[in-house]
Amino acid sequence: MIRILGIDPGLRITGWGVVESDGNRLRHVADGIVMTDSTAGVPIRLRALHEALSALIELYRPEEAAVEETYVNTNATATLKLGYARGVALLAPALAGLTVAEYGAKTVKLSVVGTGGADKNQVGVMVRRLLPGATLKRADAADALAVAICHAHHRASRNAWSRSAANAVRA
Amino acid sequence: MIRILGIDPGLRITGWGVVESDGNRLRHVADGIVMTDSTAGVPIRLRALHEALSALIELYRPEEAAVEETYVNTNATATLKLGYARGVALLAPALAGLTVAEYGAKTVKLSVVGTGGADKNQVGVMVRRLLPGATLKRADAADALAVAICHAHHRASRNAWSRSAANAVRA
Repeated sequence: MIRILGIDPGLRITGWGVVESDGNRLRHVADGIVMTDSTAGVPIRLRALHEALSALIELYRPEEAAVEETYVNTNATATLKLGYARGVALLAPALAGLTVAEYGAKTVKLSVVGTGGADKNQVGVMVRRLLPGATLKRADAADALAVAICHAHHRASRNAWSRSAANAVRA
Repeated sequence: MIRILGIDPGLRITGWGVVESDGNRLRHVADGIVMTDSTAGVPIRLRALHEALSALIELYRPEEAAVEETYVNTNATATLKLGYARGVALLAPALAGLTVAEYGAKTVKLSVVGTGGADKNQVGVMVRRLLPGATLKRADAADALAVAICHAHHRASRNAWSRSAANAVRA
């Protein structure tokens, strides 16, 4: 049994979700969003995001974290701002001693919906199906739970692969 | 008298410099660089950068921080990575309760050299002239001292302006 924190970072809205994974079984623990005050300066907003993520880690005590890798190609300023939020989202669990995995949006969709081209709505539907307890008031929380589910699937496959490899060596 | 920490952030190399400013007089306190292990994962590198900046703030006890705003337009991945480092560079002083100012590269060059189009070499020469004690083994440390000098000039002008405005009101 492992507890995973998923994060979908953004300077304005960061989605987060906590799931428990026991091999292929998944359980919803909690989800929500962190919003920062868009009228405040960037350093203040990053501090608010850092403090909220640190408090969530303290409260839910996840053992691993997974962060969505989103690219914004249209605009260097927007990409840089997303970079600030992602930097803080990668830092908070690393400071708490968690391992932090990163997954691209396509990998997350492929893992949760079965196709890398799925839209936000399909992701939400599948997250609800996989995690019946999730409230998902916001799409950003669904995306955060999706990256946590993706990490649970990947670590389960890795473990299964390690076991079969170990069996092959023993055989 | 105010102590200012200047930071020129990068994921691989972050320059830093501490100066003291007393109106228009400047004094060099310390400068250097923080390098992160490029073979390590990004979360580990961000943690190393955060811990180094936090330790420098603890050691030199600056009252204000100034961070250089550099844009990388060529490549979204490079811009995002710079964003991670800048996010961490803005966060560390904000968490320590310092005010954090941001200055674009042109503003820094204009303030230190007198022209926004100055090259790295001219910035280094002027930083050495303004801060005779600086060792400046690396260009990144010179850029960090330059942003600290820029902040010292700007806050001196702001204060002079506030004083003259107050005098105007009194007159």
